[in-house]
This record gives sequence, structure tokens and C-alpha cells, in this order.
Amino acid sequence: MGRAHRVTLLGTGLIGDFYTMTLHGRRGLDRVEVAYSRSQERAAAFARRWEIPHHTTDLRSAVEHPDTDVVVVGLPNDLHEEAVSLAAAAGKAVLCTKPLARSAEEAARILERVERAGVFAGYLEDLCYTPKTRKAVDAVKGGAVGQVLWVRSRETHPGPHSAWFWDGRKAGGGAIVDLGCHCIEIIRGFVGKGNRPVEAICWKDTLVHPIEAEDNAIALVRFESGAVGQFEVSWTFRGGMDLRDEVAGTDGTIWLNHFLRTGFEMFTSGGGGGYVAEKAETEAGWLFPVGDEVNELGYADMFADMFDALDGGREPAETFYDGYVVNAVMDACYRAAASGRWEPVELAWRGGSTPRVARAASSYDGRTVIKRETLPDGRVKLILKDERTGDFEDRVISG
Amino acid sequence: MGRAHRVTLLGTGLIGDFYTMTLHGRRGLDRVEVAYSRSQERAAAFARRWEIPHHTTDLRSAVEHPDTDVVVVGLPNDLHEEAVSLAAAAGKAVLCTKPLARSAEEAARILERVERAGVFAGYLEDLCYTPKTRKAVDAVKGGAVGQVLWVRSRETHPGPHSAWFWDGRKAGGGAIVDLGCHCIEIIRGFVGKGNRPVEAICWKDTLVHPIEAEDNAIALVRFESGAVGQFEVSWTFRGGMDLRDEVAGTDGTIWLNHFLRTGFEMFTSGGGGGYVAEKAETEAGWLFPVGDEVNELGYADMFADMFDALDGGREPAETFYDGYVVNAVMDACYRAAASGRWEPVELAWRGGSTPRVARAASSYDGRTVIKRETLPDGRVKLILKDERTGDFEDRVISG
Amino acid sequence: MGRAHRVTLLGTGLIGDFYTMTLHGRRGLDRVEVAYSRSQERAAAFARRWEIPHHTTDLRSAVEHPDTDVVVVGLPNDLHEEAVSLAAAAGKAVLCTKPLARSAEEAARILERVERAGVFAGYLEDLCYTPKTRKAVDAVKGGAVGQVLWVRSRETHPGPHSAWFWDGRKAGGGAIVDLGCHCIEIIRGFVGKGNRPVEAICWKDTLVHPIEAEDNAIALVRFESGAVGQFEVSWTFRGGMDLRDEVAGTDGTIWLNHFLRTGFEMFTSGGGGGYVAEKAETEAGWLFPVGDEVNELGYADMFADMFDALDGGREPAETFYDGYVVNAVMDACYRAAASGRWEPVELAWRGGSTPRVARAASSYDGRTVIKRETLPDGRVKLILKDERTGDFEDRVISG
Amino acid sequence: MGRAHRVTLLGTGLIGDFYTMTLHGRRGLDRVEVAYSRSQERAAAFARRWEIPHHTTDLRSAVEHPDTDVVVVGLPNDLHEEAVSLAAAAGKAVLCTKPLARSAEEAARILERVERAGVFAGYLEDLCYTPKTRKAVDAVKGGAVGQVLWVRSRETHPGPHSAWFWDGRKAGGGAIVDLGCHCIEIIRGFVGKGNRPVEAICWKDTLVHPIEAEDNAIALVRFESGAVGQFEVSWTFRGGMDLRDEVAGTDGTIWLNHFLRTGFEMFTSGGGGGYVAEKAETEAGWLFPVGDEVNELGYADMFADMFDALDGGREPAETFYDGYVVNAVMDACYRAAASGRWEPVELAWRGGSTPRVARAASSYDGRTVIKRETLPDGRVKLILKDERTGDFEDRVISG
Repeated sequence: MGRAHRVTLLGTGLIGDFYTMTLHGRRGLDRVEVAYSRSQERAAAFARRWEIPHHTTDLRSAVEHPDTDVVVVGLPNDLHEEAVSLAAAAGKAVLCTKPLARSAEEAARILERVERAGVFAGYLEDLCYTPKTRKAVDAVKGGAVGQVLWVRSRETHPGPHSAWFWDGRKAGGGAIVDLGCHCIEIIRGFVGKGNRPVEAICWKDTLVHPIEAEDNAIALVRFESGAVGQFEVSWTFRGGMDLRDEVAGTDGTIWLNHFLRTGFEMFTSGGGGGYVAEKAETEAGWLFPVGDEVNELGYADMFADMFDALDGGREPAETFYDGYVVNAVMDACYRAAASGRWEPVELAWRGGSTPRVARAASSYDGRTVIKRETLPDGRVKLILKDERTGDFEDRVISG
Repeated sequence: MGRAHRVTLLGTGLIGDFYTMTLHGRRGLDRVEVAYSRSQERAAAFARRWEIPHHTTDLRSAVEHPDTDVVVVGLPNDLHEEAVSLAAAAGKAVLCTKPLARSAEEAARILERVERAGVFAGYLEDLCYTPKTRKAVDAVKGGAVGQVLWVRSRETHPGPHSAWFWDGRKAGGGAIVDLGCHCIEIIRGFVGKGNRPVEAICWKDTLVHPIEAEDNAIALVRFESGAVGQFEVSWTFRGGMDLRDEVAGTDGTIWLNHFLRTGFEMFTSGGGGGYVAEKAETEAGWLFPVGDEVNELGYADMFADMFDALDGGREPAETFYDGYVVNAVMDACYRAAASGRWEPVELAWRGGSTPRVARAASSYDGRTVIKRETLPDGRVKLILKDERTGDFEDRVISG
Repeated sequence: MGRAHRVTLLGTGLIGDFYTMTLHGRRGLDRVEVAYSRSQERAAAFARRWEIPHHTTDLRSAVEHPDTDVVVVGLPNDLHEEAVSLAAAAGKAVLCTKPLARSAEEAARILERVERAGVFAGYLEDLCYTPKTRKAVDAVKGGAVGQVLWVRSRETHPGPHSAWFWDGRKAGGGAIVDLGCHCIEIIRGFVGKGNRPVEAICWKDTLVHPIEAEDNAIALVRFESGAVGQFEVSWTFRGGMDLRDEVAGTDGTIWLNHFLRTGFEMFTSGGGGGYVAEKAETEAGWLFPVGDEVNELGYADMFADMFDALDGGREPAETFYDGYVVNAVMDACYRAAASGRWEPVELAWRGGSTPRVARAASSYDGRTVIKRETLPDGRVKLILKDERTGDFEDRVISG
Repeated sequence: MGRAHRVTLLGTGLIGDFYTMTLHGRRGLDRVEVAYSRSQERAAAFARRWEIPHHTTDLRSAVEHPDTDVVVVGLPNDLHEEAVSLAAAAGKAVLCTKPLARSAEEAARILERVERAGVFAGYLEDLCYTPKTRKAVDAVKGGAVGQVLWVRSRETHPGPHSAWFWDGRKAGGGAIVDLGCHCIEIIRGFVGKGNRPVEAICWKDTLVHPIEAEDNAIALVRFESGAVGQFEVSWTFRGGMDLRDEVAGTDGTIWLNHFLRTGFEMFTSGGGGGYVAEKAETEAGWLFPVGDEVNELGYADMFADMFDALDGGREPAETFYDGYVVNAVMDACYRAAASGRWEPVELAWRGGSTPRVARAASSYDGRTVIKRETLPDGRVKLILKDERTGDFEDRVISG
């Protein structure tokens, strides 16, 4: 059984609510003790809402508050480096929301800061911790789908709720930085974290909103094994929040749907009102709520892993190094979107190397077997290739 | 934040594993301190598996163990009364698995025992606590579907894992007692717990297994409001565990799928092996795992409610009285299956009364409006009834 | 290749539109040549809409029109007997919409009329002809689910579009007569048409609409084999039209969804307008259209079977005798709803007899094997019953 | 009502079976009169199977057979040009399977041949004719999703059934040529056929099979409006055939699933045997058949459109010019896969021009409105941008 932790929470936006709902939820050991916001009004309201003893608008004093041993960073992206640096200087464990930084360069500095200080650091990538994702990644590791060939991760919704997300200067970009960071790390989980991301191509555009940053993007990321990751992000999706992952392997397939089709379907003529789900667009007609968002979206398992890792003296499943890799991939995507070509992922890789996906090779009668099929009448048909002539033929081999 | 509880767990079968997995899961406050089994070997193995300090084959000493304040009963149905009685006598809080008893008569004695002793008592009806069910019941209470007219609750699988379930003498019945108890309480949640179950009709049969108890049953339960509940239970279902609930109301519809279609779909050629899900039948082909069973099946929210209620001096959402009502409905089902007709639900009702579903009634031109439709061309068509003649007519009222 | 037929269509309501859309659809051989309506205005509009050469308000002359060889009856239920009688007297093939009649007695007279006249007669039970149903019934006949134990057929929507449906005197009842007739024949297809329906219990109520006839009903029908059919019908469903069938067998399971979840999902903020699907309730939010209704709802395969049967001198898959059986089952349901008990299905059965579902029976070490499970560690566990003592035990038999 | 056509069918492989099953299906007017195969044995077997009066191994005599007025080309890709040329020379209507050719250059020659001869020519792109696709395209044209921003079309399965597909010399490529041609034309249907495909990027690889041609590919195609099309093709997918399309627009979303999730779900322990569906991998476990493949996959509507167009003197919905555009897009994909960058789509465009997707633009208090949200408490929050300073702010405007 774990040791109870007391937390300084930096930031009182939507993510601060989700974090606190999780920490204070279901008979947990750990509590938020200090809340920091840039606004006195929001800090006070937040502390009241969640019964938090202390609140402040002074970042340093929040971090250094003597009652807390863990600092959780839930601030806009441009404030991560300062906040993490203060926590590291204070010798406290620090957990930082996604993305770790606005660029790999900034992420590298943040990573160095905590490593030099020797403090525990965890990357709060909730969507890698959803129960479905965890079980699916375990299945993949156990061989259920064979060698992974392709991963699609999609996160789209009608756009974020706070002004700073839309400001490329503060956020470091648009939908890629906001949503692509989730997708990239989910993809890494499925292809294997030791599988180096080699290069990326990317399309991005600002199609709907009157902003500079991209509101839509798609990228392909090629990994050392030959596997390819594909992410699709958008701030213009209609119909709720579309969170889906797909994996194709040599021996299997996985489809995950985290939000709009999870086995909860409701039609209402509109009488009931009330909260349906994060980013739901309508309150009438067919609705698709999620049973328990803090659990289904991974927050609960994420904090459990973080604190258990801290108690157990091990690394969490998602580290600042992972956050740095994600930033490096996003940098390559932005470069590729600009250059119109594959761009290498530039990073200080620590993950070793992964062999190429192995191709099957069997032969029959001196020819390469391309495919084997059982015909409706029970006979077996082979598609064969003569490697000398390059000719292909159909051959029925039993009957 | 709650007070930590120490638990005596009676029973080390599948349900004991689920309960302990939940209690010891995700940074919880509460722990199993003593495990009891009728078999020394199973008790020891269980204690080892879950790092439980004490284990025993002596029921009384397990219940009275000085280190615990809560007794959790996870024993076969024929042992509930004795176990609860011992816990009540020891003045400890007692939580009992479903069904509460083998009959309403036995349930009434159990209920009386804890009420006379004045101990806290909770009915461990996990499926009423699934996150989807809780959210759906809240939506219904909020008016999202209007007045509830019909609830279907279905639980079917290929049959239970332990011998005693199949022995009608120990279990008190077959699939109705094992699975129908879940369905009845889910139905009550949707139609309202203050809505008295009035009468039931029931079909049951033993179609596949060489046993005396029923392996299939369907029942209809009529409630005071006019709403009808329908449960379908089976020990012969093929394809996994089918757990679905449906609600129809005057203003909406709810469909819940708790198991085989929850947004996690996997095809595997069979290489991966390993546990897929409770009662999964195959390890290859298309599989439908559940992300996090202890959460999705309600165990986590159930124990949280139980201990929070205990800490807060309030009743849990599922009480022994609820368990007693469920037994009374099941008794009526068995009687109805025997008599071939509607049988009254006989019970000491504490829930007050619920009015009849109100029928809409508007009129147009002195006639009753049966239906109002907008035609494809935008005109409105009414179906009207002349109450004097009893004649119906179509009338287009605008164009 | 078939012979082209010329059709007299009696009735120009919604079903007349569906029938004609089907007959005139996709490069078909057959055409409607004469349209009859009780209203001159509707007859003329219908003939114009579908380019039909002749229309009339005279029933006899429509039936006897020299240019047609087939009469299709799409009239209210109380007019079927007269229409079929005229067609039989005219010596023409006659196809009659569902239900065949308002009671088994009336159906028996209709059946006798065509049999005595020796004319071809087909029962237009479209939902038994949906491509999914046909393929599923074929799979069942091929043994894919083993012996059928249970069939659920559900048809619910917000209520019919014409006044006469709501008038029990004309329709012969409410939702049971309108929708249950579909369900019963679907159930018969799955349990086998030679499987005699023995008895029924039924709940019906008028919960929402200000009418006399039932707007909701559920019935269980027990067949000679022990299989049970369950139908659920409603005129108060919200969210569109819910058409689902489920089959459970000793070796498999089938789930069919014909309408609201067929692989076509659309969210719209409402700009597009236009027809979504039969009985859709909304034009914005998440919508679930059906690709091709006349095909998906079985109309196309139904008429193809009817005319192919007529050309080939064989019976169609759905005969007037089937319609009569359906009426007999519905009669039993109404009697059961009134008496509150199982009522026998009274009919002149032509279908032979079907043996009881066979129970599995194997033994191990002198005991009956109740269940065999492979444990996670690869060992096999048996649940055994000692038939002398009636005791059950768990036994692990390999390791 | 149409004129009956007599068809010469060239090719007796899987597609020949599907075409003939469709033409001879459900009371149709049109028939295959002559079957040609390169193999005498296959020609004879095919003619026997489908009751076709004539068969031959002589291509020219098949095309010129006096009993036929329409030639349907179902041959390997390298034989399309010769076959179409013969048909054009014979002055007959010609319908050619997909892809039209192995390259845009070859496609242009084929197109020129039929245009110069003045014969009717139709491009047999069945997946653009599925009932779901047709209805969805109509909904898009009607404005249901606003302006189209993104279309995903995915076709993946475990690989084709005949040897020539695997031989890049005969096929002109691998999975892109086999499957991508479908996807590209589906995408064009949704973004609008007058929306010029401008450029493409593409990843392709040979990951699993021992061949030269690609067995996996993904491409992005940018259209003149700014919309992007995304296709995913694979010959290594496990679990059946995955045919899905997704559309995102400014005002809505469409998801189509044509194969593995269409509302037909079956679990079988394997007893039934028999054909499940095209490219199904297993005969036990959970299976997902399609009700009526020739209809659901678009063959029926495709031939109906072709012959109706021929009868009506109009162009079919899918023309040889469309086939040529598809080849031009595939050429750009292959070039992009080789160069690693966006490559222009080079073609003789006939489709006019399409304006850029229009961005919304409203202002409040002199600032640009980025987003408008209704808060849970009913107040409205705006996210605003000051265009002079580039600063973003949250502002609650009513309470």
C-alpha cells in the first residue's frame, strides 16, 4: 500500500479540474493541498470547489509550499519550463501535463533540469493510460497481433476551451501540439518504445477558424522497424470528440474507440439537460456519453502509476524523456509540413535499435509461396512465384 | 477523505478475487486483513496471492478477528445467513454479495438480523454500480427519457465456474437466482426504487445442461406505475458474456452494453494467448475485451460507495432491504413459472407509492389528437379520434 | 429468366409506395398497371407519381382489369378478406400484405378461398426477406448455431402514419397486430417452420397514446422443441425505428440490426434537410440512415421470390398458411393478455412435429459432466454431478 | 422500363462471378450471352455455372459475337486496352472493370479510343455505387455536412485471390492499383468531382509478402478546395475485409462501414461451415457477414445505372474519364512515394474549378470571434482575438 502524497497543483483550467477530480476521487490516498492560478479569482473558486486548503497567485510560493511533496504542472505550454525548473530547484517530484514543451529544444532543457536535480519526473500523458490502451498494448506485447505494421491514432473535436490554446505563440502550434502529442505517444506504445521514429511527412492547414495555427493536420511517421504511425488531428470535427486508435499487425488487428461509441447510447427529446460528455455538441437526439470519464480517459491509472512509481523508486510508464521524443516527432512534422517532404526526426535517442519487420518466406516445388487459400470445395490453392522468371501462377495442390 | 477500513473476506472463489483486486487496487485506503475459506489450501493460496496477513478455515474467528471492522461475505448462497448473523453479532459492518438469500423469507431474516443489531449493512450488487448504469440512472432521474415505460436487463453467459452454483439446494435455484438478481435490481434502478413491483410472469426451462435447476429464464415484472421490466438470463449463451440493458421512456431511449461491445475490438490469429475477459470463449478470431473489468463491472464504485456510506453515516445505494426486494421478485418469478400465470410480488413494502404513467391528451377541433407528423413537404398531418363515434381520421392542417 | 407480370395494386398508402418503388425499381420485369384507392384524389396522385396507366376507385374493376394477372393487396386489415376473395374469384394470383387477417378465423376463411380457387397466393411478409434475415436463417439451417433455444424479435417505433391503424375495429388490434405479426414470422423462420407454436403468454398495455388498442406489448411463445420466441412491439419508441432480431443456439449466437445501426452514421448540424429514413425522428444530431430501404427491409427479395415462385410453379417462402399461423399465435397472445396465463395456440397445424432440444450428456468417473473449462494455467477443470447423491463437485483432471 | 441487353463478358475470375451474379440476379432484364476466358476449361465451367449459351477462348469473336450489344471487361489490367479497343472497333457499348488502366497514359489512350469511336463507355467502379455511399454523397450534396474538409477511404484485406494481381508487370502496381483506385474515386465523390486533385504525398512499403509490389500504402491527396483525401490500402490486413469511409465537413460527419460491422453479428462454435463473406478469414468465433453482397458492395446499382444510362442516352455516374482521373492520381502517388515529396497530379482536367473552403469570420467588440461556447451554467463564453496585437482572450458575455 502506497504512501499518501500532498500535491501543489499549478493551473486551474479544465485539466486542473480533471486532475483534481481524479486525485480526490474514489477513496484515494493523495490530495491537492495547494492550488495556484494566475488569477486570484479563479484560484479561490477552484480551492472552494475542491476543498483545497491553500491557494495563491504566487508561483514560487506554491511550488515551495512546505505541506506538499509533489508538484503537478497543468499550465499553458509556455509556462512549463519555468514551473518545472522551480519544482526541480525545490527538490520536489514533478508531474507535467502534455505536451512537455513547445519544441524538442525546450523539452531537452526541461528534461535536463529534472535529471540534473535528480527529482522524480512524470509525463502526464493520460491517453496512454486508458484501460483499453493499456490492455491493448499488453496484448500487442504478448504477441496477439504479431509484428505491428501500422497504427492510426485519431483525436478530433470542435476545438479547445481556453484562449491560450489558439495562440500559437503560447501553445507552440495548433492542433498538432494540442492533440498530435497524444497520438504520437499512443503510436509509440503500440510500435514499441524502443522502435526509433525515423522520419515524418505531414499535411497541415487552417481550414475553418480565423487563426494562424493549424486547425487540421495529418502526419505519417516511419519507424525503424518499417512500421508506420498515422495521426489525424482536428479542431473542426463535428459530433463530439472522436478518439480512436487502430493497430494492424501481421497476425491481428485492434480497434479502440474511447469516446463516441463505447456501449452507451441514449436518445433524448431534450428534456433532461445536464452535462453529457467533454466536448459534446448537442443535448438532444442520439447522444453517446462515456460512463466514467476520469477512468476511461486514463487519468485514474495515470496518477496511480505516477505515485506508485514514486513510492517504488521506479520510473513511471511515461517519462519526461518520452515527452521529449514526442516533441522531436512534432518538430519533424512541422518541418515536413513546411518543406513538403519527409523530414528526419532529430533527437538524442536512448532506445536502442529494432529490427525490420520480417517477411514470411516459404517455398513449394521450387517456387516462392505468395498466398495459400482454402477453396470453398476444401481444396487448397497456392499463388506461387518463380523467382527466376518473375512469373506468378495459381496452383491447386490438393483435391 | 475517508477512514481506512480493514476487512475480513469470507470466501476465496472468483468473486473473492474480484473483490480483493478492487479493494487492493489503485491506491485505495482499504485492505483485506483476514481471508476465510472452507479449504485450508485455498485460504493459504488466496492469502499468498493477495498478500493478506491472516487466513483461516474457522468462520467465527475470521469474523471476530480483532484487526478488522468490516466483514465481506463472498460465500455460496446457503451460507449467507450464518455469515451475516455472525457479523451482526460481532457488531461489525457487513457487506454481502448477491443474491442476499435463497428466498424472500431467508432474506427477511437476514435483514432483521442486521437491523436489530444496528450494524451497517450493504448489498454488493456490483452491476448497479457500473459507471454506465450510474450515469444512465442519473440521466433518467434528470428526465432525459421522460417517464420510464420498459426496461430490459439481460445477463447471459455459458454458465458459472464453481460447482455449488449448479446445485439448486445450495444456490436456491439456477440462472434466475444467479443472474436474475442483477437484472431485477438494475430494472428497479431505472423504474425508480419507490416504484413497487406488483406482479410477475416467467418462463424457465432446463434446455441444455443435465441439471435440475433452470439454465434459461425470461420474466416480465409489472410495476405500480405501469412500467414493465423484462429480464433474460441464461447459462447457455455462446460467445462470451452478454450484459446489456435497455430503457424506453416517453421521451427517450437508453442502450447500455457492458461487455461484448464496449469500443475494444481485436482480431488475433491466436498467437498471443492470455486472459481475454471473464467468460470469454475463444482465444482467436474477433475478441471483445473490456478495458478494466473491476471498474467497468462496477466493483470499484460499489466498494467506494459502501465505505463512503459507512464513513458518512448514511445508507449505501444498495441496501439489504434492496436485496430482500430482489428475493421477493425472484420468488414471484418461480411461483409464476410453476403456476403459468401472473403471480403477485409478496413483500413488506417500504417504498411508498408511484402514480400511473400519465397519458398525453390534447385535442384539435373537438377531437383527440393521436399523432402529429410533419410531412416531407412541410405540412403537418394530424391523426384524430372522434371520441363520440370512435372514428379515426387523417387530417392535414396546414399547407 | 422470368416472365413479366402486370399488377393491380389495391391501396395507395405508405406500403403501396414501398411496393411500387420496389416493383418499378432497378431494371425489373414487372409493373403496376392498375392502382386502386378508396379516394379518387389519392388514386390519381399515386398513378401520376409512379406512371401507372390506370387508376380507379372501383375495387372489383381494379381486380378484374384485363391487363393484369396479379393482384397485390395493400389495404387496411378489414378489407383483406373482400379483396382476396375478389382476386380468387377472378382466378388471379394474389399477394396480400401483413397481417393476413384480424384473427385466425378470418385468416382461415381467406386461406380457404384461395385454396379452393386454386390461385397462387403469397404472404407479403417483407421482414422475413431482408438479406440479413435470409442469410441468417440459412446459417441456422446449416447448423451454425446448433439447436435454436431462443429468438428475440423486436419492432418498435413512434407509431404508424395512417388513421386506420389506430382504430382497433379496422386493424383488429394495436401494436401486436401491426408489428407482432412480423416478429412472429421471423421467430418461426429461426426456430423452424415445422416447429409447432404451442402456447403463449403476453403483456400488453396502453401506456402513452389516448387509444383503446395496445401501444406496447411483449409476448413469449413456446414451441414444440422447447425453444422460446420473444417479441417486443411498441408504438411509443423514441429515436427512430428499432428493428432487431437475436438468436441463441446451443452452438452459437446471431444478432441482427436492420435499422438504427447498420454501418451508416451521420452527424449533421441540420443544414441538409431531406428524408433520412422511415420513422426517423430528427433531422439534426447523430442520424442513422439505411442505405437502400427497399432492399434492406426485404421488399426486393420478397417480390422476386413471389414472382419467381409464380413463374416456377412452386410455393413462395411465405404463404397464406404462414399468415394464418401468425394470426393464430396473435390470437393466443390476446387471450393470454386477457387471462393472465399461458394460452394454447389453436390452429389446424400442417407442419409435422419437431423433437425436444437434446441435452448434452457425458460422464467422467461415473459422474455426469456439467461443465468443462480450461483454466488459465492450461489445466482442465470439470464440474461433476453424482447422480445418486445429487452432489456437485469441482475436479481438476489434468496438470 | 428499360431495354433488355445481351452481354459479352470477358474474364471468368472472381469479378466475373460477381458481375454475372448481379446481371442474372433478381428478375433483371439483362443477360450474359457470351463468356470469354483465356482458358477453355474455365470458360466452359463458367458458362455451365451461369447458364450462358456461348463461351470461347477467342477474344475477338467474343467481342464481335452478333448476339450481344454490350461488352463487359473483367480481365487483368494489362488486357484492358486491347479489349476496350476491340469493343470500340466493333461499335459496342463497353463497360470496364477498375482500374481503367495501369497508368494515366494508358488510360488516356483507352479513353480516346471510345471517344473517337463514339461508343457508350462505363467505368465499373462498384464501391462508388454502394447504397450507403450513394445516399451519403447525396446527403453531402444536399449540404448535410457543410463544406467537405477531409475524406478517409480505407480498403484492406489479406490479399487478392489470383496470381496476376501480385505481378506488378501485369497489374501495374500492388495494393495502390488494386484498392487505391476504389478509394480515390470514393473520395472524389465526396469532395465533388469538379474539385481538382492537385497534389499527393504517399508512403508505400512491402512489409509482409515476398513480392516486389507494395502490400501497404497510405496517401494524402490535396484538392483545389483545400480538402484533403486520405486513402489506406493493404494486402496484409487480418480479420476479413475492412471497407470504411469517413467524411468530415464544416457542419457534420459521416462514417460508413461496408463490411465488418453492418448490423449482422454471428458467433459460431464452427459447426455450420459454408461461405461467410468475401475474404473472411475464419469459420468460427465471432463473424460479421454482409446480408447481400452484390447489393451492399454496389454491383446491383452500378449495372442498373450503366444500362439505364445506355437506354437513356446519358453518361453513367462513373465514366472512363473518371477512370483516367483515378489513374492520374495513382501515378502521382507512385511518383510521390519515390521522390519522398508532394507531387502534382498531372492530367487533362475537364472539371472546372472549385473555390477554397470559406472560413467563418464574425466579430465581437472589435475582436475576431474564434469560438463560442455555452457554459454549463448557461452563460456564453467567447474566445476572442485582437487582430492588432495578436492576443487571445476568454470572455464571458452573458450571465
